[in-house]
Formats: sequence, C-alpha cells, structure tokens
Amino acid sequence: LLNTVFNGTVTTPLGFQACGVRCGLKEKGLDLALVYSTVPAAAAALFTTNKIKAAPIKWSQALVPSAKIQAMIINSGNANACTGSQGDQDAMEMAQLTAGELSLDREAVLVASTGIIGKPMAMDKVRAAIPLAKAVLSADGGPQAAQAIMTTDLVSKHFAIAFDLGGCKAHVGVMAKGSGMINPNLATMICCVTTDVAITPNMLHEALHAATDESLNSLTVDGEMSTNDCVLAMANGRCGNALIDKPGADYDLFVQSLRTVMQAVARRIAEDGEGATKLALITIEGAANREEALAAAKAVANSMLVKTALFGQDPNWGRVVSAVGGSGVQLDPDRIAVSFAGITVLQNGQPIPFDLAAMKKALAEKEIPVRMSLAAGAASATVFSCDLTYDYVKINAEYHT
Amino acid sequence: LLNTVFNGTVTTPLGFQACGVRCGLKEKGLDLALVYSTVPAAAAALFTTNKIKAAPIKWSQALVPSAKIQAMIINSGNANACTGSQGDQDAMEMAQLTAGELSLDREAVLVASTGIIGKPMAMDKVRAAIPLAKAVLSADGGPQAAQAIMTTDLVSKHFAIAFDLGGCKAHVGVMAKGSGMINPNLATMICCVTTDVAITPNMLHEALHAATDESLNSLTVDGEMSTNDCVLAMANGRCGNALIDKPGADYDLFVQSLRTVMQAVARRIAEDGEGATKLALITIEGAANREEALAAAKAVANSMLVKTALFGQDPNWGRVVSAVGGSGVQLDPDRIAVSFAGITVLQNGQPIPFDLAAMKKALAEKEIPVRMSLAAGAASATVFSCDLTYDYVKINAEYHT
Repeated sequence: LLNTVFNGTVTTPLGFQACGVRCGLKEKGLDLALVYSTVPAAAAALFTTNKIKAAPIKWSQALVPSAKIQAMIINSGNANACTGSQGDQDAMEMAQLTAGELSLDREAVLVASTGIIGKPMAMDKVRAAIPLAKAVLSADGGPQAAQAIMTTDLVSKHFAIAFDLGGCKAHVGVMAKGSGMINPNLATMICCVTTDVAITPNMLHEALHAATDESLNSLTVDGEMSTNDCVLAMANGRCGNALIDKPGADYDLFVQSLRTVMQAVARRIAEDGEGATKLALITIEGAANREEALAAAKAVANSMLVKTALFGQDPNWGRVVSAVGGSGVQLDPDRIAVSFAGITVLQNGQPIPFDLAAMKKALAEKEIPVRMSLAAGAASATVFSCDLTYDYVKINAEYHT
Repeated sequence: LLNTVFNGTVTTPLGFQACGVRCGLKEKGLDLALVYSTVPAAAAALFTTNKIKAAPIKWSQALVPSAKIQAMIINSGNANACTGSQGDQDAMEMAQLTAGELSLDREAVLVASTGIIGKPMAMDKVRAAIPLAKAVLSADGGPQAAQAIMTTDLVSKHFAIAFDLGGCKAHVGVMAKGSGMINPNLATMICCVTTDVAITPNMLHEALHAATDESLNSLTVDGEMSTNDCVLAMANGRCGNALIDKPGADYDLFVQSLRTVMQAVARRIAEDGEGATKLALITIEGAANREEALAAAKAVANSMLVKTALFGQDPNWGRVVSAVGGSGVQLDPDRIAVSFAGITVLQNGQPIPFDLAAMKKALAEKEIPVRMSLAAGAASATVFSCDLTYDYVKINAEYHT
C-alpha cells in the first residue's frame, strides 16, 4: 500500500542490509546494530545541540553531509560520553573496525552510541562483536538492528513507507530508540533513516530538517536533551528515480513521506516513554507564530503537573493554562479555550460545564488529545508526549550509576 | 540576637497585627489571613509574570508602590484565577469588606489568593469571615496567618530577623506558602513581608527586587510558575530609623536582612516541596555571567532525571552535565567538574574515583549540595530545590479538579 506507514524497517528500502548482535555492553540482549548500504549512499544527519557531546557524535558530525557513506555502527549500553580523548579514540576505532570488515574507508562509517554516560567503552567486547555483526548482515536484519539500539525502551521502534516517485517505487525505512532523556531539539535520541531514493547529500540534509520539525522535534518525554541525540540518514538511490538535487515536486514528495514515517516513530517513542500509561497529543492553536505554538505545546507537554494530571485522568485545564501562561507566549486571557479529548472545558477564559461521564470515559483511553487555543494568531503545533507516573520515578530513582 | 534568622513572623516587626481564621474555602483548617499595620505603610510588591493572572493579582498590581497601604487579606483554597469579571469583582469586594472593618479606603488593602484555579469564590463565606478576622487581629497572630495561607504545605513558613539600623532595632518578618507550582520568576508563590523600617515605596520596591534574586527567584519545586505568585511588602516605619529614601549603607543593610530572611523562606519551601524527601542545593560556578549560572542551576534543579536520581540517592553526574549542556550555557566540556555533598565525581570533563561509602552516607542526608563548575567565567548561582518522588506523583495525580 503506497503512502501508508507499515511495520517495515531500515532494510525495507532496496540495497540495505542490517543486523543486531549481542556485544555485551548491556546486561542482556542485543546491543550492537550495523546498517549497511550495498552501494555508497548520500548521507546527512542532525545532531544534539547539547553543549556536552558524546564522542561518536563528534566523529559522525565531521563526516556529513557526504556522498560516500555506506555503514552505521550503533551500540546501546554505553553512551561513550564524557569519556575524554580515549572516548574519541574508541569512536574512531569502531568506525575503523567496521570499515575493515566491509572493505570501506573509515570515513564511510557513521557511529552512534546510547547508554550510560561517563563509562569507558569496553572495546575488547566491541572488537569481538563487529566481525560477528558483519557475518550476520542480511536484507531482513532490520528488526534485530532496531532491537539492538534499545535502552529502557519496552518495544522496538521501526517503520517504513513506500511511495511512487516518478514511476519508481521508493521507500523510506526508519528505526529509533527512546525512552528517557527525550526532548530532541533539531535532532533526537538515536534515529536511523534509510531510503533507496536518489538524492544529493545537501538535499537529504534539507529534507531531514524539514521532516523532523513536525515529528521528532515535536516530541518530549521528560524535557531532557541527551548528549547523544542524532538522526542519521543514508540514501542509496537504488529505487531508480531521477536524482533529487533541487527543490520541486519530487523533493516535496520525499519530505512528505519522510515526515509521515518519522511522525509514526515520534508517536511510538512518546507512547513508550519511561513509565508512560498515556500518549498525550498536545496541540496549541491560534498562536502568533509556529515557534510560539511549539514552545507553548512543549511547556504543557513538559509540565510535571499536567503530566501527573493525565496519569490521574483528570481534565486539569488550570495546569494547562498556567503552563502556557508561564511560557511567555502571546495569548488573549479572555478568549483562550481548552479541550480534553474533544470535550471543551474552558471557553473565553472561563470554565464551562461538560459531560463528566463522557470525559471520564475519554480520559481512561490510552491516547489523550489536549488542545488549547490562544486567540493570538493562526499558527499551531502538536507535540507527542506522555504522562508522569510512579513507574517513571521507579525507573529513574532505582537506576544507579 | 541581631542579624540571625529566627522563628518570628509578620507580627514580629513593631506595629503589625495579624490573624488566621476559618473561612470554609478549604476542606478544613484556617484559610483566611489578615495582616494589618496600625499606621499607613509604604508598600511594594512583585507579581507573577505568567500571562494568565489571577484577579487579586490584577487588583494588587494596580495599587503598588504606595505610601498608604495598611492591610493584606489573603485566602487559600481558591486562587480566584480564570474566573472572569466576577473574579475581578470578588477581589475588589474582599478589599472593600476588609477596608470597611478597618475603617480604611479599599485602595489601602492588598489582596492575594491561592488554591484551585477556575472556581468562583464562595463570597458568602468570605463575607462572613472577614469581620471575624478583624475581631481576632492581634500582635501575636502571625503564626496563625502563616497557617491560613497553606495549601499542600506540610509545614507553615514564617521567619524574622532583627538588625541595628542607625541605633534603632529594626525587624523584617515574613511568611510564605509553597509547595507545588513553585518556580518564581521576578515574583513567587505568596510571600508577605512586614517591616518596621521607614523606607519609601520606591526604595522598598528596589529592595524587594534585590532580595528576591538570590532567594525566592532561586527556588524551584516543579518548574511551574503559578497564576497567583506574588510577594507583598509593607514597611510602617515604626522602628524609628531615618527614612531610607536613596541607596546607601542603611539601604544595603535593609536589603541584606531582607535577603537573609527570604533565603530562609526559600529554603523551607524547597524542603517542603510536594512529596520531597531531599533539599537540593544546586550551585553552578565558573559561569560566564549570573544569568547563565542561574539558568544552568534551574535546568539541573528542574531536571526530572536529576530529581529522581536524588530521590534514589545516586550521584548521577551524567544527568547533571546533560541538563546543563542542554540549557545552552557556555562551558568548557574538557574542564567541567561536578561534586555531590563536597565529593568530586567529575573533573576535567571525566569521572574520577571517589569514596563510595562516604558518598552513600552523604546522599542519605536530608540536604544534598550539588555543585558544577563550567570553567567559562567567574559567576555563580545557587538554587533551592527538592527531589521527585512517588509522593509527588501521588499528590498530583490523585488531586482532582
């Protein structure tokens, strides 16, 4: 089915292989992913704007945009952040070992890591695991790769989309990890995108930017931007379309497909936020501009009081308006309105009666849309988020460094 | 004892009377406070910068600075916010009823409210309680007044300080409420200051600003700025000092005393934050400027991951550096350092070995100092905060609108 997100993955696009193997950096389970394009691919990436950047971020950032990337090597269990010059050395060695196995230059390999901050990489384990990963690379290894990048995620996240591009059937595949320290800003946790579309590195970079704005950049679990956030993309041109080297209809179609599949990922990450029982879709409308709409939506999405109210299934509009008011965005206090799950509870700045039974039923659902209108303009934004629960506290208080 | 904070209150300064009475806006306990100066007082106040402002905020904001304020009427149980023009009317009526009882103009009465947002004031109850409050006003009623402004606070907050001002014994008394929706910005929750110092309204306003920067504005429980935040101050000149009408030694001494007593309040509010088991003192040093130091300290103090780590008694410096890095302030990644309770865990950007037993003991204490050095300058800031616990979630998820 064209233009519909399905349960595909990074090996859905033509000419990609992947795998997930056990390296031993996590206590159990797969923890090393390799994604490989059989031909050199255009590559672009977005990175965390955190001032503290992990070593693999610095390695990968120096390589893109590029026309000759062929592999991504990604581990979970160790973030390789705050690890000094040894960490930089280790990130480079991960690229080098991968390149050696695949007969590539080390500059053709992007590296990403996620996990504990400040712990030296157990490179003996990595050295043993990379040849193993090479040995099991396959065209249907995407789901294992998605498993291998999980940290506190309960479910792996991977999706794909197919679309017609000038008569060619094109694909975008994506995998990502959550589920704590999630508040991407011009970047995200770790997200890998593969596509068989032919596109220049620069246009791929533009497309990534455009697609993340309403997907991964509109996502927050806990308001925390990680030291290791990145979105890495490879486009190998195997679908046979005419090279996208400038804006136009093909580019727009590609961006739209990319955005659609990345929205599916953002939604899934929010839904699987640490301890979450609710997927909160926070929409701000009537904002003066898009920036203010997004800032207001994030203020609501990150409000501990709103998040606990959603957990408690309480339509606490007071906390919503206080969070938005506190964010400093323009609004008309006498014309603001708030609804939960489509049921209006505040209109023209004042509470109105509503059907309590219908509200109770709606707030018992897994997915809770919260909308607030600011009456200050025509811009809007929707942010994917989740509630704050006992389990969030448990997960993060019982985690020990 | 001069210059030392003690267990005084708003009736400690000469010429002030107060009381707390049961009005019936809360389910139980005292919920209406009256503070009265026997002579007209200079008054100044700071207010929430939330775009959604409660009705009493609008009333009081129009009155200050003033040379003729004589009373503050404050209720808990209802915030009188998002209550439309009826709310404005009700705030004015509270001033008017109080003025009537005390034979004042209604413009001599400041009003503040705290509690549920969006609920009409039960004015019949208020009308019955104000005469009762007048009847029990007394020079030792400060502690009851402090009780009457509590919401989810477990303990009432009131302090005083005495100091020598040109041969006169001067006093500052203060009471405040916490304990959720606490992240004051150029204002705070509700805090009442009384003093028998003679000072002009404008200099009192300056002094309030100066004293709050390192006290109430350096405080956060949950990162949420309320619609009802305010600091209200009355100075009645009864101590007999020479009027403070310009900057100078007397002004500096007054500000210093005010700051000291307000720091005691800020600390107590953090300690009594909703569900808190720890008082976190977050210090950022080596920042490029004071603004960045404060922003970084607030980023750490508001980080759900840092707060849960403190609850878990884990020296998770990775979450501290990630929060600071994400706040966008200037820092040198290779020279940052972090300590918990005086025990250094990160130096020159990398973890160092530390005494695990000593750390475990230190983190079991009630008060946890966390320091991070940014190596970017000479500015510093300390923020008063608390941990994030199961009880925070319980309190806020089980609260129903």
